[in-house]
Amino acid sequence: MYKCTIKVRGYELDSYGHVNNSVFFNYFEQARWEVFENAGLLDQITTLGLFLVVTEANIRYQHEVRLGDEVEISTLVKKDEPFIVFDQRMRLVNGGISVAKAKIKTVFVDGMRISHDIPPGIGPLFNV
Amino acid sequence: MYKCTIKVRGYELDSYGHVNNSVFFNYFEQARWEVFENAGLLDQITTLGLFLVVTEANIRYQHEVRLGDEVEISTLVKKDEPFIVFDQRMRLVNGGISVAKAKIKTVFVDGMRISHDIPPGIGPLFNV
Amino acid sequence: MYKCTIKVRGYELDSYGHVNNSVFFNYFEQARWEVFENAGLLDQITTLGLFLVVTEANIRYQHEVRLGDEVEISTLVKKDEPFIVFDQRMRLVNGGISVAKAKIKTVFVDGMRISHDIPPGIGPLFNV
Amino acid sequence: MYKCTIKVRGYELDSYGHVNNSVFFNYFEQARWEVFENAGLLDQITTLGLFLVVTEANIRYQHEVRLGDEVEISTLVKKDEPFIVFDQRMRLVNGGISVAKAKIKTVFVDGMRISHDIPPGIGPLFNV
Repeated sequence: MYKCTIKVRGYELDSYGHVNNSVFFNYFEQARWEVFENAGLLDQITTLGLFLVVTEANIRYQHEVRLGDEVEISTLVKKDEPFIVFDQRMRLVNGGISVAKAKIKTVFVDGMRISHDIPPGIGPLFNV
Repeated sequence: MYKCTIKVRGYELDSYGHVNNSVFFNYFEQARWEVFENAGLLDQITTLGLFLVVTEANIRYQHEVRLGDEVEISTLVKKDEPFIVFDQRMRLVNGGISVAKAKIKTVFVDGMRISHDIPPGIGPLFNV
Repeated sequence: MYKCTIKVRGYELDSYGHVNNSVFFNYFEQARWEVFENAGLLDQITTLGLFLVVTEANIRYQHEVRLGDEVEISTLVKKDEPFIVFDQRMRLVNGGISVAKAKIKTVFVDGMRISHDIPPGIGPLFNV
Repeated sequence: MYKCTIKVRGYELDSYGHVNNSVFFNYFEQARWEVFENAGLLDQITTLGLFLVVTEANIRYQHEVRLGDEVEISTLVKKDEPFIVFDQRMRLVNGGISVAKAKIKTVFVDGMRISHDIPPGIGPLFNV
């Protein structure tokens, strides 16, 4: 399980005065980038010429997030060949209340958008 | 069923050179705003002091969208008291291929974030 | 002079309930993409292996833009070797009031981020 | 002078593989929010019923910012009645190279979009 924290930025608020739904999506994506960075895999994927694309996203919203809030996102990475599934949960750092859960299903594709099996070198991803 | 078209903007491309996943989320949201606008309900909701918030979003990605593409989004609005569910589908205008499907579950809340039943005046929403 | 219209999207509103400043920036960028598209130059630049990067941006905000508004952006392209300067103005379609002006200075760079002279094939850009 | 750091998020990269110009704009805005937060003024402005709006923005881009980079933004706040001017500079944390400079001119307006003098209670802003 990998944990990272993200601080809300003022321009991410929408006309309701809270963080817009699509920004939650961005936060979860950023947490996934950090998993790759943390596992030392960012460069390797570029070298392989593969792209990790999302095939399905499911997000449950439980609580609003506001200006000044900081969230902690925990990410669990699972194999479901040829898919890689990210189970993610977002909590408020201050208080620990759960604000959202996400299940993101992804697959590696090449430049021709053909899907590939999970590359062997990606192993460290499942140990973070 | 309400249909609207959205043209891809250059700054919506990500480092993979195609429209980022979270932008699909934005497109679907914009289609929902247009449903309300089309039903003449934008001002009424503001008057009621209610906000329509997303409680769950499920998006399936089927095909990439690129610069120069235009997409058509069809939106079907269903009651599931107290929820309002939007069944949405995105297609490429040029060719008609389906690029994404979304199911977005929403509920009305007031300024105190307390959920409300579907307000009676919202009826026209289900006839678009 | 090239003109295009852009319709405000609901998720572009900020916590003040109007279109955020940085979105104006996006609108002006989109208008520049459309100038290239309209001049038939999008593919050519990719072929050249060059990128047009912004070196300086000056934006004056004159009036707010709100949900439901549509704006028309007129773009004038000027040579200032090795720079290409875009003089842009945004007006409300409904009423014609000027809402913002921008002067965007750009230069072509290659993959090594070395700046280049204006490529000869780019001529049609200055005739739109 | 107020300093804050911002880490690049993967979804902020554009089709050129670097941080898009408009994101620089977002970073500078976020630094200004933090100046207000740091001066303990976020709530006070809401109470006054005033909004700080940008009337002019000038940004010079000096160097690209990439995935994995972290930037430090220093912000100097100056009075130019009735305007408040923010002189901002962005540097790479790793190496210290200057990547962008911004001069942002702002003014307080009320709900009717009428501009106001700088409110007296805002004093702490000029001491950060």
